[in-house]
Amino acid sequence: MDIFKKCYDFTAVRDAKEAGIYPYFHALESRQDVEVIMEGKRRIMLGSNNYLGLTVNEDIINAGIETLRQYGTGCSGSRFLNGTLRMHLELEEELADFLNKESVVTFSTGFQTNLGIISALVGHGDYVICDKENHASIYDGCKLSYGRRLLYRHSDMDELERILKGLPEDSGKLIVTDGVFSMGGDIAKLPEIVALAKKYGARTMVDDAHALGVIGRGGRGTADYFGLADEVDIYMGTFSKSLASLGGYMAASAPVAEYVRHTSRPFIFSASIPPASCATALAALRHLRTHPEIVDRLAEITRYAHEGMRARGIRIRESEGNIPIIPIYTNDVMTTLNVAKAIYDAGVYVNPVLPPAVPESDCLLRTSYMAIHTEALLDEALDIIQSVLVRFGIQ
Amino acid sequence: MDIFKKCYDFTAVRDAKEAGIYPYFHALESRQDVEVIMEGKRRIMLGSNNYLGLTVNEDIINAGIETLRQYGTGCSGSRFLNGTLRMHLELEEELADFLNKESVVTFSTGFQTNLGIISALVGHGDYVICDKENHASIYDGCKLSYGRRLLYRHSDMDELERILKGLPEDSGKLIVTDGVFSMGGDIAKLPEIVALAKKYGARTMVDDAHALGVIGRGGRGTADYFGLADEVDIYMGTFSKSLASLGGYMAASAPVAEYVRHTSRPFIFSASIPPASCATALAALRHLRTHPEIVDRLAEITRYAHEGMRARGIRIRESEGNIPIIPIYTNDVMTTLNVAKAIYDAGVYVNPVLPPAVPESDCLLRTSYMAIHTEALLDEALDIIQSVLVRFGIQ
Repeated sequence: MDIFKKCYDFTAVRDAKEAGIYPYFHALESRQDVEVIMEGKRRIMLGSNNYLGLTVNEDIINAGIETLRQYGTGCSGSRFLNGTLRMHLELEEELADFLNKESVVTFSTGFQTNLGIISALVGHGDYVICDKENHASIYDGCKLSYGRRLLYRHSDMDELERILKGLPEDSGKLIVTDGVFSMGGDIAKLPEIVALAKKYGARTMVDDAHALGVIGRGGRGTADYFGLADEVDIYMGTFSKSLASLGGYMAASAPVAEYVRHTSRPFIFSASIPPASCATALAALRHLRTHPEIVDRLAEITRYAHEGMRARGIRIRESEGNIPIIPIYTNDVMTTLNVAKAIYDAGVYVNPVLPPAVPESDCLLRTSYMAIHTEALLDEALDIIQSVLVRFGIQ
Repeated sequence: MDIFKKCYDFTAVRDAKEAGIYPYFHALESRQDVEVIMEGKRRIMLGSNNYLGLTVNEDIINAGIETLRQYGTGCSGSRFLNGTLRMHLELEEELADFLNKESVVTFSTGFQTNLGIISALVGHGDYVICDKENHASIYDGCKLSYGRRLLYRHSDMDELERILKGLPEDSGKLIVTDGVFSMGGDIAKLPEIVALAKKYGARTMVDDAHALGVIGRGGRGTADYFGLADEVDIYMGTFSKSLASLGGYMAASAPVAEYVRHTSRPFIFSASIPPASCATALAALRHLRTHPEIVDRLAEITRYAHEGMRARGIRIRESEGNIPIIPIYTNDVMTTLNVAKAIYDAGVYVNPVLPPAVPESDCLLRTSYMAIHTEALLDEALDIIQSVLVRFGIQ
C-alpha cells in the first residue's frame, strides 16, 4: 500500500475551503500587534499569545537589530558544539535569577523544550503523570521518553492521588501540568499537586508558557502566584508568548539542568537560537523586570474584557483567576466555524477551538488579551462578537 | 525513588572538567565567521555548518534588520493560527520553485521538521526504514510516530533490500536517509535506494540538511546531484546551515504537504519562525539562487582542504564526492579529547566525535569548511592540526 494514501484521502480541508469556512493560515501583512492587517483588511487581534505586546516594543526591536548587525543572522550549530553565544549564557543567567532557580537551559522552540526535558528525565521504569488538558508538546515529550505516561482527568486531584497511590515506591515519578491551561484559561491546582507530590515522592514540573509575564509577582508565573516558588522542581516556559521571540527554557536545580544539558537529544541535536531572537528574548525579559506595571495593566485589561463579556451577555467558560484567555461557548463544530468566519469578516481575529481539543458539543472561540489593548479597542471588538453571536442565535 | 537520582549520579561532565578536557559549550563572543572570538581568543572556525558563510553576508543581515524593524520581533503563535506572515508563504513558494517540488511546509527548527514529517506520515501499520547513521532527529521522529522503525547498516543496500522484501505488501513504507551524512561526510547511495523503493512500493525521504547549498546543480541537494530530482518523494532540509538562519522545510507533492500542514503536531502546536529569521532564510535562498558560484567556491575550498590534509599526512575518513565535512581519525576517547583541546588551545575550533556516535576505537575530529574560507586560513589551520597530531603521535 502507498504510505501516502492517507494524504490523498484527506478531504476535510478541501471541503471546508469549498464551504467558505476554512479558518486557518490567515496571512499577516503587518506586525503582530493589537490591530493587524490580515488578508488585506484591518482586524482587531484577539487571538495571539502576545500577552505583554512586546513584539512591537521599539526598545526590544532595536536590541534585536543591534545584535543582528553585530553577530550576524545565525549560529549555524548546536548550543552543545559551535552554537553558543555569550548572550545565550546571559539570557540563561538572568532568567534563572528572575525565576530564583539555580540554572536555566534554553531550547530553540517551546515545543522542543517540553520534548527535551521530559524525554531526558523520564527513563525506563519511570512514570510521568499528566493532566489530560496539558499541551500537545507535553504529550509528545512523554511519547519520546522511555517511561510510562499516566493521565488524570483535568484538574481532578482525587484521580491524581489514586494514580500516585498505585505506583511502585521505588519508581521515579514526575507530575507535569500546564500552569495556565492554554485553551481553557484556568490555573492548575498547584497547592494540591505539590502536596500530593510530597506525599508520594514525586517531582513536579509546571509548563508556564501561558503564565510567565501573566501571573505571579512581576509575572513570575504559576508557582509564584501560589507562593510555591521553592516547591515546584521544574519550570518550563517559552519565549514566543510574553517574551515576544521564539524558544523556550527549563529552570531547575543545577544538577537537573546539567543533566538535561548533556543528555537531551532535542537540545543537543538542534541549532541554537539565532542572535536576534536571543537578543529580543533577553531584552523582553529585562523590560518585564524593569516594568512590572505591564503585568498589572494586563490584569486590568483582562478584567475589562471579562466585564465587557458579562455586560454583553456573552456566554464564556468561567474560571478562577484573572487570565487573559477567555473562551466563548459556540456549541457545535459548524456553528463555531461559521461564527468564527463571520467575526473575522467583521474585523476581529479569534481562534476556533474544535474537536479533538474539546468535545463535539462544547466547541469554543478562544479569545486572548494583551497589555497594550485599549478599552476602546476591546469595546469595538466585543460589540462585533456580540452582534455575530446574536445573529447566530447563540445568546 | 527520586526521578532526579540519575541527575545526581551523573558525574562524567564534572570529571571531564576537572581533567581540563571538557570540549562543549565554548562561548562565542563574535559572529559565526571563518575566524571567531571564542572564550576570549581568536580561533579559526572548522566546526560550523555555515557552509556558504552567509551568516555574515551584509545583504542578508540587512534583510533581517529591515524585516525586524517592519514586522517586530515575533509572531506569537502557530503558523496554523495567528502566526503566518505573508513572508512565510513567500519563503515556502520560492523554495518549492527552487527545489522543483509542488509545495513546501516550513517548521521552526530543522529538528522539529523531521519530527513533524515522520510522525505525521508514518501511522499505525506503516513501516519507516532508516539508515543507522541517520540524524538523531530522524530517530526521534520515528519514535514519535505510531509506525514501526527498521534500521539497516550504514549504506548497506543488501540489508535494505532484505528488509523491504520481508515487509507485507499491503503496508505503507517510507525509506528515510540523510543525503549527506552529518558526521561521516559521505553521500547516500540514492540511485540504489530509489530503485529499491520502486521495486518494493516504498516512498523515499531525503534529509538534505548538509546537502542544500553544498551539492547538486546550484546547491539543490542530493537528489539533484544524482539526477533523481523527480524520483525522491520528500526532501527535508534546514535553514540553520547553508541558509544561515533557523528552521527547516519539507518539499513534496501538494497533497502530502497539505496533509502534513493539517496533521503534524510539531508543526501545528509550535510558534512560527520569527520575522527576522524568516527574512534571513529567504534572503539567503535568493542569494544562493543568484550566486550559484558560491557553491562552486565551496567545492574548490573543500578540494583544497582534502589536498592539504593528504599533503600533511593527516589520516582522514575517505568518502566519495567532495563534501565539506572531513573527519580525522583520532582513535580512542581520551586521545580525541586531549587532541581536540590542544587544537583548540592552538587556535582552531573542531568538533570531537565520540561514542555513541562512533565506536570506542574509531573516534574522530569532525572538520567542516565554508565557501568564505581562504586558502591562507586553511593552511594556517591545517598546519596547527598537523603539529598537534604529530605531538600526540597520531601520524
